[in-house]
Amino acid sequence: MPLFQVIAAKLRSQIAAGTYRPGTRLPSTRRLSAQLAVSLTTINRALRELESERLIVARERSAWTVEVSRPLARVGRPVPPEAPALVGTTGLIHDHLRTVLDPSLVPLGRAEPSADMLPTTELSFCLREILRREGEKSLRYEHPVGSRLLREELARLSISWGCVLEPDDFIITNGCSEAIHLALQVTTRPGDVVAVESPTFYGILQAVAGLGLRVIEIPSRPVSGLDLAILRRALQRHPIRAVLTVPSYNNPVGGCLSTQGRRELAALLAECDVPLIEDDLYGDLFHDGMRLPCVKSHDVGGRILLCGSISKTLAPGYRIGWLVAGRYRDAAQALKLRLSYSTATPLQHAVGLFLKNGDYDRHLRKVRPQYSRRMAQFTELVTEVFPPGIRIHPSRGGYLIWVEWSEGSSAMECYERALALRVSVAPGEIFTVHGRPTTAFRLHAGFPINPEIIRALKVLGECLR
Amino acid sequence: MPLFQVIAAKLRSQIAAGTYRPGTRLPSTRRLSAQLAVSLTTINRALRELESERLIVARERSAWTVEVSRPLARVGRPVPPEAPALVGTTGLIHDHLRTVLDPSLVPLGRAEPSADMLPTTELSFCLREILRREGEKSLRYEHPVGSRLLREELARLSISWGCVLEPDDFIITNGCSEAIHLALQVTTRPGDVVAVESPTFYGILQAVAGLGLRVIEIPSRPVSGLDLAILRRALQRHPIRAVLTVPSYNNPVGGCLSTQGRRELAALLAECDVPLIEDDLYGDLFHDGMRLPCVKSHDVGGRILLCGSISKTLAPGYRIGWLVAGRYRDAAQALKLRLSYSTATPLQHAVGLFLKNGDYDRHLRKVRPQYSRRMAQFTELVTEVFPPGIRIHPSRGGYLIWVEWSEGSSAMECYERALALRVSVAPGEIFTVHGRPTTAFRLHAGFPINPEIIRALKVLGECLR
Repeated sequence: MPLFQVIAAKLRSQIAAGTYRPGTRLPSTRRLSAQLAVSLTTINRALRELESERLIVARERSAWTVEVSRPLARVGRPVPPEAPALVGTTGLIHDHLRTVLDPSLVPLGRAEPSADMLPTTELSFCLREILRREGEKSLRYEHPVGSRLLREELARLSISWGCVLEPDDFIITNGCSEAIHLALQVTTRPGDVVAVESPTFYGILQAVAGLGLRVIEIPSRPVSGLDLAILRRALQRHPIRAVLTVPSYNNPVGGCLSTQGRRELAALLAECDVPLIEDDLYGDLFHDGMRLPCVKSHDVGGRILLCGSISKTLAPGYRIGWLVAGRYRDAAQALKLRLSYSTATPLQHAVGLFLKNGDYDRHLRKVRPQYSRRMAQFTELVTEVFPPGIRIHPSRGGYLIWVEWSEGSSAMECYERALALRVSVAPGEIFTVHGRPTTAFRLHAGFPINPEIIRALKVLGECLR
Repeated sequence: MPLFQVIAAKLRSQIAAGTYRPGTRLPSTRRLSAQLAVSLTTINRALRELESERLIVARERSAWTVEVSRPLARVGRPVPPEAPALVGTTGLIHDHLRTVLDPSLVPLGRAEPSADMLPTTELSFCLREILRREGEKSLRYEHPVGSRLLREELARLSISWGCVLEPDDFIITNGCSEAIHLALQVTTRPGDVVAVESPTFYGILQAVAGLGLRVIEIPSRPVSGLDLAILRRALQRHPIRAVLTVPSYNNPVGGCLSTQGRRELAALLAECDVPLIEDDLYGDLFHDGMRLPCVKSHDVGGRILLCGSISKTLAPGYRIGWLVAGRYRDAAQALKLRLSYSTATPLQHAVGLFLKNGDYDRHLRKVRPQYSRRMAQFTELVTEVFPPGIRIHPSRGGYLIWVEWSEGSSAMECYERALALRVSVAPGEIFTVHGRPTTAFRLHAGFPINPEIIRALKVLGECLR
């Protein structure tokens, strides 16, 4: 192990042990260098490593602050993993979806990006431009794998994901939902066991349920993401056929797997010869620093299937996503053809043009700091109006906040009470396989703060008391 | 049975027995009235009934010509139905699709409407209008069941299908492919047996294969469509869980089930308590007379699932279709949500506006006679350049022609020879479950005739010699 990693490991375990408590400062780099008798360069590399794991953040110059805020009691409970189970929360999810779509509620339970953060003008311009340039071509079937232009632009973009993909690696899909559906279906058969994060996006649980798969839940935590030690044990104990994870700013807890964790995850699955489905939906919405490389960037055998879309960055309603299916490419192409033949032509072309024009980078550079600011404001507000003892986990990317408490009402009870007062939240129950009571919910923190949101948060504060 | 139906049945069996040979004239109405000792009114009703079944056509005044051209030897061969089988033609279909998408071929093997028959200007206008009116709303998620406006317009349109549907009966889908997929999945489980027409559109066979279903092929014939007597026997002998049919101008043979046949089909399935999946993709493209009522119009128990789309009339590339799922509506909605969450927002809205503006009726009134004319020209040309003894079956709706011969090369052999000469056709083999050699292929007769098409038909004529 290189020296900087030895140092990083030492600091990591000290942070875990509480030697450096959350919110406190680490010793200066100069002091660490002297104490540990290694060069400043080595110390700096070790600290950058911990930063990439979101364990510490840089303050000014050589001062570093420990990031993790508190022990994470009730999230990702099943330790060690329980027996494989069928998803039993479909009813709950459908109830929730009905409320999510109700326009009379304050929509804190939604995961759709705030409408004012979408590039309406630029994207509509591109679509108009496609209609003008292409005429009847914009009405005709696209190739089932998708537009060449869009796939070329995604291949270009893939360098920022740490991958070097080619246009032919991509299949354009009806949003990330279809990509995940294809990925699950080409790697499994009904009755198979898959490992997913817990809690995880209910759409993933629904896709898994629809294919008749059984689920092992692997704990996923705010800040650090998927628990790799538990995943390793689960892989030893159960006949897991595929692992599905959202490594960057996952929905709902907002965790982000470290650079090192990503390497380990790829190596672990290669060792077990198990395919990984990587859902990178929020990857481009990191708030600061750099984009962490996709787990896919460590893929050697084509076992990692990468799913993505523009639904959280540009236009949820365009239903444009993609799948990079590695060694499963041919099967995924055949399946795409069966399921929906091809994806809507003019919208694919418009997104291709948007990327080609360089509008995507420009848009991201604009929205990242805005989301970061909104998130900070929202967190501050929540801290103010929620009762003490509530743990708040703002994600470091995207716009979701995970809120946890230790005792009192269940999330479903809070949810019902809030609904009666015209406020929606996403209760923890819908993100699990069993739907047993949780004490956590997810909030959308990406809307501009207005009196309605302030009222809604006060309502939630009351519901939590 | 009313008297006119007794008379119609008599004439029907005489036509079937060859008493009135194809292409010959029936006795005049006056003479029939005298001979059969019934009123002129009754005779006229009986003849109209046979006309609706496409068995006879009106010439001038009271002269009627028998329509069916020749006995239909090799189409829809499996009589009685064979044992349920898994679809074994996936490889063939994928080979075919590669050639279908090759722009260097004369595309007689395609089923996509000719680009000059699409309402490019009007539809693009509607899409621009939606972008202008809706702004950011056009980028946001639509409700999983689809746009209210579009569903209202479809409900309005449903009266022309002989149905009286409500907006809430519809689920908007990613083209008819997704509608069929949903319909199959909510009515069956893997391993179940479904009855489909033979030959039938390979996309249907692929959907069936993808869901692990076994298939009973029911013969489907040019002109008359699905063989109900054989379907009835199959329903008695096999545990059929769903029947899937394209009653109007089906792909590839172009048959159309009569008004009476539609009633019988609905009654038969109601009696057996088996759901019917009705794919009405080409229903609006009848060339003359009236639209035949959908089988769905005879649905009493909600067992008929109606699938449709704009892919053959307005814009294949928009991927806008619909499903009316009857008693399976809730299950189909939940499944739609899982598969693709929702359908592309701006395109649904644009199609809704297009319908609302009355552009759809206008467009259909324009293209129907054009297709009819092109079909006639194409048929004439084919008759001229193909060797004698080849049977040509132009559909009475849409733009497909089914070509059959009795001996000599198989369709796959012709297909290979034609490909080498840069002409694509759709060989009969890909429309069957087993892929055994056939002596029939499907041609696209809806393109404007040009020297390239003439050359291609001559090439095919040579391949058939």
